Amino acid sequence: MAQTPKNIAIIGSGLVGSLLAIYLRKLGHSVTVFDRRPDIRTIKFSGRSINLAMSNRGWRSLQKVGLEGKIKEIGIPLDKRAMHVNDKPVYFQKYGKEGEAIWSISRGILNKRMIDLAEAEGTEFRFNEKVWDVDLPEAKIYTGETEKSEWKEYQYDIIFGCDGAFSRVRHKMQRRSRFDYSQDFIDVGYKELTIPANEDGTHKLDKNSFHIWPRGAFMLIAMPNIDGSFTCTLFLPFEGNVSFESIKTEEDARAFFKEYFPNVRKEIENLTKDFFQNPTSAMVTMKCYPWTYWNKVALVGDSAHAIVPFYGQGMNAGFEDIYVLQELMEKYGDDWESIFSEYQKQRKPNADAIAELSYRNFVEMSSKTADPKFLLQKKIEKHFAAKHPEKWIPVYSRVTFSDRPYAEALAIGDQQEKIMKEVMKLPNIDDKWDSKEVEDKILRLLKDSK
Amino acid sequence: MAQTPKNIAIIGSGLVGSLLAIYLRKLGHSVTVFDRRPDIRTIKFSGRSINLAMSNRGWRSLQKVGLEGKIKEIGIPLDKRAMHVNDKPVYFQKYGKEGEAIWSISRGILNKRMIDLAEAEGTEFRFNEKVWDVDLPEAKIYTGETEKSEWKEYQYDIIFGCDGAFSRVRHKMQRRSRFDYSQDFIDVGYKELTIPANEDGTHKLDKNSFHIWPRGAFMLIAMPNIDGSFTCTLFLPFEGNVSFESIKTEEDARAFFKEYFPNVRKEIENLTKDFFQNPTSAMVTMKCYPWTYWNKVALVGDSAHAIVPFYGQGMNAGFEDIYVLQELMEKYGDDWESIFSEYQKQRKPNADAIAELSYRNFVEMSSKTADPKFLLQKKIEKHFAAKHPEKWIPVYSRVTFSDRPYAEALAIGDQQEKIMKEVMKLPNIDDKWDSKEVEDKILRLLKDSK
Repeated sequence: MAQTPKNIAIIGSGLVGSLLAIYLRKLGHSVTVFDRRPDIRTIKFSGRSINLAMSNRGWRSLQKVGLEGKIKEIGIPLDKRAMHVNDKPVYFQKYGKEGEAIWSISRGILNKRMIDLAEAEGTEFRFNEKVWDVDLPEAKIYTGETEKSEWKEYQYDIIFGCDGAFSRVRHKMQRRSRFDYSQDFIDVGYKELTIPANEDGTHKLDKNSFHIWPRGAFMLIAMPNIDGSFTCTLFLPFEGNVSFESIKTEEDARAFFKEYFPNVRKEIENLTKDFFQNPTSAMVTMKCYPWTYWNKVALVGDSAHAIVPFYGQGMNAGFEDIYVLQELMEKYGDDWESIFSEYQKQRKPNADAIAELSYRNFVEMSSKTADPKFLLQKKIEKHFAAKHPEKWIPVYSRVTFSDRPYAEALAIGDQQEKIMKEVMKLPNIDDKWDSKEVEDKILRLLKDSK
Repeated sequence: MAQTPKNIAIIGSGLVGSLLAIYLRKLGHSVTVFDRRPDIRTIKFSGRSINLAMSNRGWRSLQKVGLEGKIKEIGIPLDKRAMHVNDKPVYFQKYGKEGEAIWSISRGILNKRMIDLAEAEGTEFRFNEKVWDVDLPEAKIYTGETEKSEWKEYQYDIIFGCDGAFSRVRHKMQRRSRFDYSQDFIDVGYKELTIPANEDGTHKLDKNSFHIWPRGAFMLIAMPNIDGSFTCTLFLPFEGNVSFESIKTEEDARAFFKEYFPNVRKEIENLTKDFFQNPTSAMVTMKCYPWTYWNKVALVGDSAHAIVPFYGQGMNAGFEDIYVLQELMEKYGDDWESIFSEYQKQRKPNADAIAELSYRNFVEMSSKTADPKFLLQKKIEKHFAAKHPEKWIPVYSRVTFSDRPYAEALAIGDQQEKIMKEVMKLPNIDDKWDSKEVEDKILRLLKDSK
C-alpha cells in the first residue's frame, strides 16, 4: 500500500538511523537526521565499540534496499571460530553449514558508508545539533547548544528515536506514567585493543576466523579489518582478582598479557599502550515498553532494546526492526497508528528473547566454558546435530543464519536444553556419549516434546 | 560514636524527608529541606494517596526519637480485617495476637504533623524551591523556577534524596554508568473515594477494622479517619471488561457500585462524584542500585525502592531505612563512606524482599482469593499456626508485627509455601485438612527443612 509522503525526523545518525533514512527515502518521505555528534565522516573514529558481526538478519535488511553488495565490499566473511585455548594448538569450529558465515565489519567504516548512501538518497543530515526535548503528542523536537540555552523548535509528522542505549527520545517517554523500563549492567567491562597488520598489509592471524581466547572469567576476542589489522576486545571484570581495577601499571598489563595470552606475546607493547589509551566501557541490557507514542513517535534499535554483545546481534536486531517496519508500512499504508502498534507488539518479544540469549551467552562464556559436563553436553549436541541436521538446528544457527523470530529460537533452545538435561542424567554418559542408545534417547525425547 | 556537625540538605519534605530531618537535627547537624511543592500545611490535601497503615517498623522508628505518642494521637488502631464478601454477612479476621494492630493514619495529617515537629527541632524548610540538578561528587544542588531559568547553587556536605518514586536525585545518579534501574507498572490503577462521617461524627462502618471488598480482578478497601470518615481506595484494571476505561458515565459508575458493592449503596452518590473528580493513579515497583554516591549522596525511602501498596509497607520501609542509618551513624561516627556503603548493602536485599512480597500480595488478591484450593491452604496454615504459634509465624506477622529483616520473612515464607505444596498433594486433603495426619505431616516437613 502506497504511503502519503510525510515529513520525518530521525534522531541519531548511527547504523540504524541511517539505514532507516534510506528505507524512508525510498518510500518517498522527507527525512532529516539529527545527531548531537559531528559528522563521523570528518573525524578519526574513536574506536569505542566492538567490531560488528553482520549476519543473516542484517544482510536481509540491506538486501531489501539493494545495499548488500556495497557493504560486502567493506567486510570479511568469517566461517569459523579460532579457539586459542591455553596449552593447546589453535583449533577451529565451523559456524554453520558450507557457505554460512558472519561478516566482520568495522563500525566506523560501515557508519560512514551508510551516511554516504543515505545522503545519496536525499536525506538531510544535521550534525552537531543536539536534541534536548521532544514534544511527543505534537511531534516537535527542540535543539540547542546546551540544555539551558535558547532552543530551536522543529515540527514533524513523525519522529524516530534511533539514538541508542541512552536515547533522549526514550528518556522523554520514560517520564510518562505506565512506561516500563529497566537497565541492568553486568560486572564485566570491555576495552578495544588493536593488533596491527604485517608490514606487507596481510593479517597476523587467520583472516577468516573469529578469534577467541577464553579464560574463564575473562576473554579476548579478535576480528579482522580490511586493512590487515585486527580489532581485539578484552572482556574483563571491573573489580576482583584479575580485573580492570587490578591492572594499574604498564608492568601489570604486560604481565597480564604474557601470562594469559602467550600466543599474542609479540603484540604486547601495542596491547599495553592501547590498554591505557582506550576507555573501559560498561555493558548494559536495556528494556522498555511501549516503544511508540500513538502515530507520532517510535523507538528503533538500541534505544528500544540495548543488549550485551555476546551474541553479535545488536545491530542485526536493529536492522530487523527496520525490515519489519517496512513490511508493516506496506501492509497498513497511511495508518501509522496500526504500523506502530503492530511493530511494537511484533518486535518486543523478539527483542526480549535476543536480550536473554545474549545474556546467557555471557554467563556461558564466563562460567561454563571450563565445566567438563557442559563441554560434554555441547559435544553430544554437535554429534547428534551432525547426524540429524533437520531434527536439531542449534540455537546459534537459528539466531545467526535464519530469519525466524528470536523468540522461536529461544523457545526451541529451551526445549533442547530440557532434552539434554535428561540425556546428561544417563549413567556413564561420559563413556557412551556417541552411542546408539544416546541417539535413540534424544530421538525419543524430541518426539515426546512435539 | 559522636558525629561532627555537617551541613545537610534533604530533597523532599514528605514523611521520610521530615523524619530524617528530625533524626539528623537530634544528632546536631544543620538541616535544610527543599521541596518543589508548596508547604502542605497551607493547602487542602489533594487526596491522591492511599491512607497509611503504620505498623511495627514505622512505630519503632518514631519511638527512637520520642514521637510515637504524638503520632498515635492522630491514628486509629485496626486489629482486624472486615471482609465484605458478596452474599455473605461481613466477617472479621484478626491481624495478629492480642494487642497487635496496624494504625490507620491520613498521609496528609501525618505529613503536616511531621513537618511541624521537624521545624520545632530547628530544621529549615524551603518550600516551592525546585531542585533541577545535583552535582554528586561536589554535593551541590541547583534550584530555580524552571529547568531553563537562572539557577541558584547551594553547597552542602551531604545530600539525601527523599524525593519519592520519581526522584530527581536518583534521576541524576541514573545517568552514571553501571547504575542498575527498573520501573515496572502494574495494569491496575487506583482512585481514592470517601465515605463521609455520620452526622454525629461517628464512623459508618466498624472503626477498628481494615475494610475489604474483594472482587477478584478488582477490590475496594476502606480505612477510618479520626474525623469519622473513611478513605476508600478502589483498585481496578486500567483496561478490560470492568475497568477504569469501561466506566465512562455517572450512570456506568452508579451501576458499577450497585452491582459489586451492594452494602455501600447508601454512599453511591458520593462515590460516583469522587470517581469523576479524583485522579486515577498508576502503581509502580521501582528498584535501583547503588543507592549512594561515595560519602556525599544517599537515597532514602521511595526514591530508592518504590513498591506497590498491597502490603501496607511503603512508609514503614522508608522509616526503617532511617532507623538503620541512625544505627550506622552511631557505629561509624564521621566515617560517612562506611555509613553509606553499609546502609545500601544492608537495606537493598530487604527492599527487594518487600517489593517482591508486595507484588505477590497484589497477584494473590487479584487472582487467587477466589480459588478454593488457595482458601483451603490458608485455612490449614491458620489452623496449624493456632496450634503451634511458635512453629508457624505467618509471613504477614513477620512483616507487620516484627522488626526482623524483610528478606528473612520472604525466605521463611517461601519455605512455608514449599511445605504447604506438599501438604496440598495429600489425597482427600479437603476432608482431612484439620486431621492429626496433616498436622504431623507439617511438623515432619518443618523438621526436615531445618
